[in-house]
Amino acid sequence: MTPRQLLLSLALLPTALAASAEANLPSWRDGAAKQAIVEFIRDVTDKDSKNFVPTAERVAVFDNDGTLWSEQPVYFQAAFMLDRLKAAAPEHPEWKSNPAYEALIARDEAQLARIGMKPVLELLAVANTGMTTEEYGAALKAWLRTAVHPRFQRPYTDLVYRPMQELLAYLREQGFQTWIVSGGGIEFMRAWTEDAYGIPPGQVVGSIAETKFELRGGNPVLVREPSVAFVDDGPGKPVGIYRAIGRRPIAAFGNSDGDLQMLQYAAVGEGRRLAVIIHHDDTEREYAYDRDSRIGRLDKALDEAKARKWVVVSMKDDWKKIYPFEEAK
Amino acid sequence: MTPRQLLLSLALLPTALAASAEANLPSWRDGAAKQAIVEFIRDVTDKDSKNFVPTAERVAVFDNDGTLWSEQPVYFQAAFMLDRLKAAAPEHPEWKSNPAYEALIARDEAQLARIGMKPVLELLAVANTGMTTEEYGAALKAWLRTAVHPRFQRPYTDLVYRPMQELLAYLREQGFQTWIVSGGGIEFMRAWTEDAYGIPPGQVVGSIAETKFELRGGNPVLVREPSVAFVDDGPGKPVGIYRAIGRRPIAAFGNSDGDLQMLQYAAVGEGRRLAVIIHHDDTEREYAYDRDSRIGRLDKALDEAKARKWVVVSMKDDWKKIYPFEEAK
Repeated sequence: MTPRQLLLSLALLPTALAASAEANLPSWRDGAAKQAIVEFIRDVTDKDSKNFVPTAERVAVFDNDGTLWSEQPVYFQAAFMLDRLKAAAPEHPEWKSNPAYEALIARDEAQLARIGMKPVLELLAVANTGMTTEEYGAALKAWLRTAVHPRFQRPYTDLVYRPMQELLAYLREQGFQTWIVSGGGIEFMRAWTEDAYGIPPGQVVGSIAETKFELRGGNPVLVREPSVAFVDDGPGKPVGIYRAIGRRPIAAFGNSDGDLQMLQYAAVGEGRRLAVIIHHDDTEREYAYDRDSRIGRLDKALDEAKARKWVVVSMKDDWKKIYPFEEAK
Repeated sequence: MTPRQLLLSLALLPTALAASAEANLPSWRDGAAKQAIVEFIRDVTDKDSKNFVPTAERVAVFDNDGTLWSEQPVYFQAAFMLDRLKAAAPEHPEWKSNPAYEALIARDEAQLARIGMKPVLELLAVANTGMTTEEYGAALKAWLRTAVHPRFQRPYTDLVYRPMQELLAYLREQGFQTWIVSGGGIEFMRAWTEDAYGIPPGQVVGSIAETKFELRGGNPVLVREPSVAFVDDGPGKPVGIYRAIGRRPIAAFGNSDGDLQMLQYAAVGEGRRLAVIIHHDDTEREYAYDRDSRIGRLDKALDEAKARKWVVVSMKDDWKKIYPFEEAK
């Protein structure tokens, strides 16, 4: 390359990067949100920028429910657990006289509120523990193949957000590690996140059931216990990040108050950081909810986003398509 | 390439692989141990083998103390904690009348045995908690720069095993993920494992102190608490693997009874698996200990290795050199 060619290629660089983002993020509309995300990526990967971040430290964390896929009308994991409860019912005739079981099956929210969480969780624990982690994983995969979402009448794994799939791939192409940090159970996610997002089991951080090592008939297994070892939600998310990743992320993506501390942990501090909130404001293509929602409530984190000038993505305005199966519009 | 050239290149393949292992493992002597390890790697990475394992599932786990670096005369982390105790002593005049403190400083094992572990652990907890994880990491790095091993009079991080560094790099070159799964504390390892072994913080599994998220003067931090969240030892190791990796390893390396369940979890089951025990039998260059050692006791796991025909590496016979600073012999 001649010096002149070198200069020319350098002059073309920002354009080339913009073209690359354009090619890699086709489901994102041009606008402030996309621009802020792309400009952040450009800046921290630019060797000549004062904000350059070496590859090893390019850690981006993503909430899952409501950030990478839908979470309405109930967290999809709750649908799985309820189906497991129904499947296990024939072996538990005693449940018929259990008010928590009746209320769950009838989805009687008033009755559930009267009963309280404890008997409900105990019941779900009985239906979802005692088996090995491998048996649990197999049950989960079988469920994912057959269960359908009540509104969209499609497998739950169809309801991932296409723009976020594109962004995950683009970040990895730019040398980022992409991690999920979710309040959901680790196995529930690990069964499908590699296919859906390109995120392997070892980069899925989530809530964890106690498990116990056993040699069962000479075969080494881990058996699920009916107690919770770790809740990866709210202030638990930075703790989960610390335990599993061991580096403070420079970018975080969430959609609810359960992500507030993770967003703070990643975005408040020295150096260039990125905090993004996915705002559910599209009743037509997905759902619209924030401050008053029972699921995925976004209230304090929305105030914090405004105060700290975090990026707020409007699903309605910033995304050409939401689900992979949609036509772009 | 002509068909004849193709056939020729295939015929040369095993030789090429053997040459590659030779070039990559120069500190290993030819012998049964090296041969078993190299043959395992060749087999599971050979697309035409019935034992072929896809890249995503090539997970290898390594104990740290006594497997990747030395652990005598005391676990190096214990030396760090003791030094921290001494450093914190001026701020704690009340310790002078604390029998646990006196016994620790004097290394009075008989007295420590009389006192029991609880007061000792409480004391160490006070000296090692209350600070943020970042402050703790900084203290650790400062200690690693100045502390020297009592016998070798070198920084502790010099006492890593050269043959294992070579093996880690070789496994990664062959598409394996290499993870540490240690009873030691995660921060203690993360401060140096990337430099020493090429293993990043997110692939270090270990024991974990409780931490609490706080905004300290507006700055998001995690504060170490004086309680233990998880002990990654013995039957805890498969649990740690499950939580952090989410896949059953196909190869495991350990050196003591604390690794027994990890070795079983990785090696007992269908498909080709590799379990390796590093046997400390070299008084001259390192240490010799097994069934009767207080640190790194190797008793049940040695019996199991014999029964199951696991690979037992003799440090004396199988390694040309032990530490990177040695001349090969």
